[in-house]
Amino acid sequence: MNASGFNAISKLFSEYVVTRQCMKCASRRYSSLSVGDKAALSKTFTKDDVETFAKISMDNNPLHTDPDFAKTTIFGKCIVHGVLINGLISAVCSTKLPGPGAVYISQEMKFLAPAFVDESITAEVEVLEIRKSIMKCSTTAIRTGNKEVLVKGEAKLLIPKVT
Amino acid sequence: MNASGFNAISKLFSEYVVTRQCMKCASRRYSSLSVGDKAALSKTFTKDDVETFAKISMDNNPLHTDPDFAKTTIFGKCIVHGVLINGLISAVCSTKLPGPGAVYISQEMKFLAPAFVDESITAEVEVLEIRKSIMKCSTTAIRTGNKEVLVKGEAKLLIPKVT
Repeated sequence: MNASGFNAISKLFSEYVVTRQCMKCASRRYSSLSVGDKAALSKTFTKDDVETFAKISMDNNPLHTDPDFAKTTIFGKCIVHGVLINGLISAVCSTKLPGPGAVYISQEMKFLAPAFVDESITAEVEVLEIRKSIMKCSTTAIRTGNKEVLVKGEAKLLIPKVT
Repeated sequence: MNASGFNAISKLFSEYVVTRQCMKCASRRYSSLSVGDKAALSKTFTKDDVETFAKISMDNNPLHTDPDFAKTTIFGKCIVHGVLINGLISAVCSTKLPGPGAVYISQEMKFLAPAFVDESITAEVEVLEIRKSIMKCSTTAIRTGNKEVLVKGEAKLLIPKVT
C-alpha cells in the first residue's frame, strides 16, 4: 500500500474502528450482529440489466451481450457478468448484513460456474468473524433453482455504527 | 467446491485449457500475450451511473446514492460502489487484456481509498503469469488525477482462443 492509500485507510479506521477504550460502547453499537448470522437476496438478471451494466462499466465482453458470439463458446448463450453477481452479494451486505452504511475492505471470489441471463440467482452472506467494527463473512452466489454454487468467496466490511 | 461446481469448471477447462499435447498450437493461439503486458481504461462514474447500478444490482447502500446520508459519514459525499470499480477492471480484461471472450476464474480486491462520484478513475491490468490458457494479472484502480491507489488485487482469467 502506498503512503496516501495507507493514510486514507487509517483515516477510515480512526472513524469506524472502535478502540479498546470503548468496547462497552461498541457492544451496544454492534450488538445486533453475531457470528453465524445469515442473509440472502435473489435476483433475475435480464438482458436489459446486462446490457445496461456493460454500458456503465465499459465491460462490453461479447460473451455477455452478443448471442451470436456466445453461441460459439462452451456456454452456448449469454452469461451474466461475474462482477454483476458480485453486485448482488454487495447488495446483501449493504442492505441486510451488516446493513446500510457498510464499507467494503476486501473481497475474494472464485467463479465456479456461469450464471445465464434470465435465471434467478441467490446471493448469500454468513458472518464468520467480528473483530471490533470489522466483519468477515463468506459470500456465495448460487443458482436459485438447483442450488449450484456459482461464486464462492469471502469479504471484510466495516460495520456501520448503529445510531 | 461442490460436485456440480467441479463438473462445471472441469467442462470449462476441457474446452479452454490447452493440453500438453498441443502446446505448439497453444503458442500460436496465445502468442500475442506476454508477462509484463499492460492495459488500462479510464472512466468517470456519474451520479446517473451509480444510481443505475444501484437499481440493477439492488445495492442501494445510501453511502452511494443519498447525499444527506453520505454527509454524515467520514467520506462527506457519495462514493462509487467498489463493485462498479471492479467492473472497470473487468472491462480492461474483456476488451483489451486478454480481450473479448475472456472468462473470470477468480478475483481478489482490497479497497484502500474511496472513489467519489464525478471523478476520473483509471483501471490498470498487468500480466503476471501465463500458464497454458490461464492468465494471472495484477488489477489496480487509481484516482486518475493524483494516481492514488483505490483498489488493488489480482485476478485469473481464461484466455480466449485466437481465431
